[in-house]
Amino acid sequence: MQITAAEIYQSIESIRQKAPVVHNITNYVVMNNTANALLALGASPVMAHAAEEVEEMVNIASSLVINIGTLSESWISSMLKAAAQAGKKGIPIIIDPVGAGATTFRTKTARGLIGGNPPAVIRGNASEIMALSGDEAGTKGVDSAAASDSAIAAAQNLSKIYKCVVCVSGAVDYVVEGGQIIKVSNGHPLMTKVTGLGCTASALCGAFAAVEKSAFAATVKAMAVMGIAGEMAAEKAAGPGSLQVHFLDNLYNLSEDDIKLRLKVGE
Amino acid sequence: MQITAAEIYQSIESIRQKAPVVHNITNYVVMNNTANALLALGASPVMAHAAEEVEEMVNIASSLVINIGTLSESWISSMLKAAAQAGKKGIPIIIDPVGAGATTFRTKTARGLIGGNPPAVIRGNASEIMALSGDEAGTKGVDSAAASDSAIAAAQNLSKIYKCVVCVSGAVDYVVEGGQIIKVSNGHPLMTKVTGLGCTASALCGAFAAVEKSAFAATVKAMAVMGIAGEMAAEKAAGPGSLQVHFLDNLYNLSEDDIKLRLKVGE
Amino acid sequence: MQITAAEIYQSIESIRQKAPVVHNITNYVVMNNTANALLALGASPVMAHAAEEVEEMVNIASSLVINIGTLSESWISSMLKAAAQAGKKGIPIIIDPVGAGATTFRTKTARGLIGGNPPAVIRGNASEIMALSGDEAGTKGVDSAAASDSAIAAAQNLSKIYKCVVCVSGAVDYVVEGGQIIKVSNGHPLMTKVTGLGCTASALCGAFAAVEKSAFAATVKAMAVMGIAGEMAAEKAAGPGSLQVHFLDNLYNLSEDDIKLRLKVGE
Repeated sequence: MQITAAEIYQSIESIRQKAPVVHNITNYVVMNNTANALLALGASPVMAHAAEEVEEMVNIASSLVINIGTLSESWISSMLKAAAQAGKKGIPIIIDPVGAGATTFRTKTARGLIGGNPPAVIRGNASEIMALSGDEAGTKGVDSAAASDSAIAAAQNLSKIYKCVVCVSGAVDYVVEGGQIIKVSNGHPLMTKVTGLGCTASALCGAFAAVEKSAFAATVKAMAVMGIAGEMAAEKAAGPGSLQVHFLDNLYNLSEDDIKLRLKVGE
Repeated sequence: MQITAAEIYQSIESIRQKAPVVHNITNYVVMNNTANALLALGASPVMAHAAEEVEEMVNIASSLVINIGTLSESWISSMLKAAAQAGKKGIPIIIDPVGAGATTFRTKTARGLIGGNPPAVIRGNASEIMALSGDEAGTKGVDSAAASDSAIAAAQNLSKIYKCVVCVSGAVDYVVEGGQIIKVSNGHPLMTKVTGLGCTASALCGAFAAVEKSAFAATVKAMAVMGIAGEMAAEKAAGPGSLQVHFLDNLYNLSEDDIKLRLKVGE
Repeated sequence: MQITAAEIYQSIESIRQKAPVVHNITNYVVMNNTANALLALGASPVMAHAAEEVEEMVNIASSLVINIGTLSESWISSMLKAAAQAGKKGIPIIIDPVGAGATTFRTKTARGLIGGNPPAVIRGNASEIMALSGDEAGTKGVDSAAASDSAIAAAQNLSKIYKCVVCVSGAVDYVVEGGQIIKVSNGHPLMTKVTGLGCTASALCGAFAAVEKSAFAATVKAMAVMGIAGEMAAEKAAGPGSLQVHFLDNLYNLSEDDIKLRLKVGE
């Protein structure tokens, strides 16, 4: 499978035109950035976590992004309820298992979410993906203790069990579905010094999956766009504070040429 | 009624001198921006939502801003408690009915809040104001599905029922009280690509209402200041990331001349 | 006691090399900034508040920062649980008593936290420190109603009772332990116009305490680094929006020379 700059840009234009509603049940730390990144890309973000309304909110959404970064019991039951409704309605679910492996509670919750309603995409760092797959990889809080390529086997395993796309992000991102694997090599090390860019990547997966039938292609496109907007931002940035500002500006202004010039996607 | 640049600037100076405490019970997504915008303007923001303390916090506040952007049951009962105390104490309440119309839960909660203790100001987008008024306007998550002028009748209806100021914000903002109506035409389309600027507008209404007897004048002033700081930011910004940064800088530095040169307020 | 630029820089290098996990149970308003400041400094921030996981998270952390800015009952019990585990494990606890004195609930909660498990450091503004010590200082919401030097006696009192370091921050920061006192005069007034920089200071105390045996030295270093990064940011900033951006960039890039040129630490 080949993903071209033209195809990526077509999806961006589709997001800009349709402004799909992306329903996020995500963590407190990144809500603001996630909403801003979705708006900059052209989507229409919604954050809603109350049991009383998540199903109704899913009904007006084109995709559902669930992120377990700052969990608690009442949020989990809303996540499960929202996921069940998304399953019924047939909209793609993206799971971001933040900190899986760091605590039993997170690993268990992430597994429960994935097992309950099959997601379209799981996106995590190497430690998280290995923890979900049962590997004893170790983790460093919410940061990965391992390079992304060390989690490819775990990603393939999860993809087969849950019949979904699994993305291991890191210096190189690996997008896996069954036997297929695509590498996205865009991005910049300074991005790891800004909180929540992984969470933002998951949210962008939700935006692309809202306008694109193939969850695999949607994930590759989202990761490429993250990486390109991020490396363009890093080149202009004096540090992580200005990187975040430029990143949002770049997402908003991203052109087909920007993508063509920088895209590093391969098998 | 006429609002002049000099009157707006006088209120800003009053906020900068008195630094009124504005108590916010607001959503997770925008808390940081809201607090920063209030600080930049010169107010002293407080965020507190625990049932155990909201009444005591209201007692040291000069206005109360309630925003239902990320609702849940325990927050609603604190909102009601805080509003009751604000009513007793006689400080202005600003209600921001985020996403009213998007889910039954939000519409019902917003109505309960407004019906319980009469607010000084309700500020929302066209979809939200129409939903509160009982119009079937449709909504797109938390973004409006309609232009602001389509909600004027709904705003007038709400204003008569609840005897309060109603502001419909959009490309043009309409501030309504009984038979009175003022248009604020400041602002810039790029502002819709930054999350929470509507919520920030409601917070600024709280700051102006804290130093100004007329809730109607306070709302017009707040919307004008939002729009002017926003359009000045948009002219310098490369995208929504830098717009947010410039917006806060402009709020902090706003001069009487900035307002005089740009003010677009009329009947 | 004397703290030199070389010693401060040595601790920064140690943070950058070890990337210690700093576990934060903090408020909604500042979570994002706090995480970004810790990342920019070189630490690895974790935010986790669920009763089910706080002990396990403490177990992988090198310090624990507890901030009561947006309290509620369930969070308090997690804070106590996390603090107890930190006590057992012997990692330093930093307490930020946001708004102590503003409501009975906050004063009581802060005292309960400090009394339960002796913290290594308490950092607050003058109003908060005086409220904890039992002085009727008055407070203005979460902003201080008094200059930092008016709280020195209160800080000394708290330090003796709880056998911990107490830092009163303000235009001048006072770091107190028993009979010892060090003044840090770095910083800039514009920093008070950005929400959560006090909370960020507490988080940085956590990062320095994670790599430094003396909690007293760690606190002085953290406050000096905050002030230096902040005054460098203020010199370049057009207002509080750009100050926040430059602040993170400066934290990331801080050199030994920056510290040497600017350090204002004395007895």
